[in-house]
Amino acid sequence: MTQLKELEQLLVDFRDQRDWQQFHNPKDLAIALSREASELLEAFLWKPAEEGRIEKVKEELADVFAYGLLLAHHYNLDVEKIIRDKVALNASKYPAEKAKGNATKYNEL
Amino acid sequence: MTQLKELEQLLVDFRDQRDWQQFHNPKDLAIALSREASELLEAFLWKPAEEGRIEKVKEELADVFAYGLLLAHHYNLDVEKIIRDKVALNASKYPAEKAKGNATKYNEL
Amino acid sequence: MTQLKELEQLLVDFRDQRDWQQFHNPKDLAIALSREASELLEAFLWKPAEEGRIEKVKEELADVFAYGLLLAHHYNLDVEKIIRDKVALNASKYPAEKAKGNATKYNEL
Amino acid sequence: MTQLKELEQLLVDFRDQRDWQQFHNPKDLAIALSREASELLEAFLWKPAEEGRIEKVKEELADVFAYGLLLAHHYNLDVEKIIRDKVALNASKYPAEKAKGNATKYNEL
Repeated sequence: MTQLKELEQLLVDFRDQRDWQQFHNPKDLAIALSREASELLEAFLWKPAEEGRIEKVKEELADVFAYGLLLAHHYNLDVEKIIRDKVALNASKYPAEKAKGNATKYNEL
Repeated sequence: MTQLKELEQLLVDFRDQRDWQQFHNPKDLAIALSREASELLEAFLWKPAEEGRIEKVKEELADVFAYGLLLAHHYNLDVEKIIRDKVALNASKYPAEKAKGNATKYNEL
Repeated sequence: MTQLKELEQLLVDFRDQRDWQQFHNPKDLAIALSREASELLEAFLWKPAEEGRIEKVKEELADVFAYGLLLAHHYNLDVEKIIRDKVALNASKYPAEKAKGNATKYNEL
Repeated sequence: MTQLKELEQLLVDFRDQRDWQQFHNPKDLAIALSREASELLEAFLWKPAEEGRIEKVKEELADVFAYGLLLAHHYNLDVEKIIRDKVALNASKYPAEKAKGNATKYNEL
């Protein structure tokens, strides 16, 4: 089993031992993921860009990955594959030579 | 190299080839991650809980993982470790026998 | 009619002329509001704190208010009253003399 | 003074009595607004679409309006005007006869 599949299985087991799969429709999983992303961002609120609260970052980032893996599990997605596909797509949208040093969205280049 | 480290390296290389590391302070990475989580959720907007748009789910979930890995890279975090630490913490907060079938937040159990 | 009630009515009329009330359950309205808040935040992504894109700020902030008013309408809430109630609650949680110049969350003071 | 201007002033006074204006750059205000929108959405997490926790809805919706008014204050925006401008823009993007009963985004009509 790959590293990502093992982590996915860890989370599914944790969930199933608590009978929480009944709540885990994909829409609510996506809401939960977005809440964790917001709590992650809260680690930087009212602070300079480099001074996030690292303990909060670790916990909330772990939660973001956890809900991401549970969503991937729901749809039977291969996380490595969707990341590689997206990087390939972005490479064609943002060719290195055009995008160099430019944060503008690709369609505004 | 682990599977997660390889994916992290893929994203760092993509970023560095475009000289985007100058924009990638952790606060803006967290904003970007939260935006992608919101776009993921948009795949379910105005729809029944099981009818997300799967192509959009794939792309936005990949983006969520990508910014998550870039944040982990910034802080030199081991993603597998923070997930396992968080699962261990949650196991103590939500013991399986008490949490069974109950979506209430742990501190309200 | 108050200014807020007039704006609420404007939005309800706009919605009803398009038969969109069928999609507007409160959960999806809250998802839509959170998407607009995320698009508002995108006006500041990869930018210094004072350099938001003002045209985007205006449009997305208007959308945030619009979904907020539609949610208030759904629950028949008086927006002025809930704001005044929350300010009164916050005044007791963050007494001016203790909170002065301190962005720490009230429960950590 | 209009109703919205009075509420804006109430919030500015509350803030200034605590010397919090130093933290309130527009980027962090937008982060705070997006956090409140996420907490509002949390009132519906793992629940059927009509069964939000109403007390939480009231508090978080009030916070959303509060940060929205503080952002409007920062940019000296007239909230009624930006809402009316956006409704007029949407009326041209989603003509009632074409959009009737259709939740598809305007550019996909």
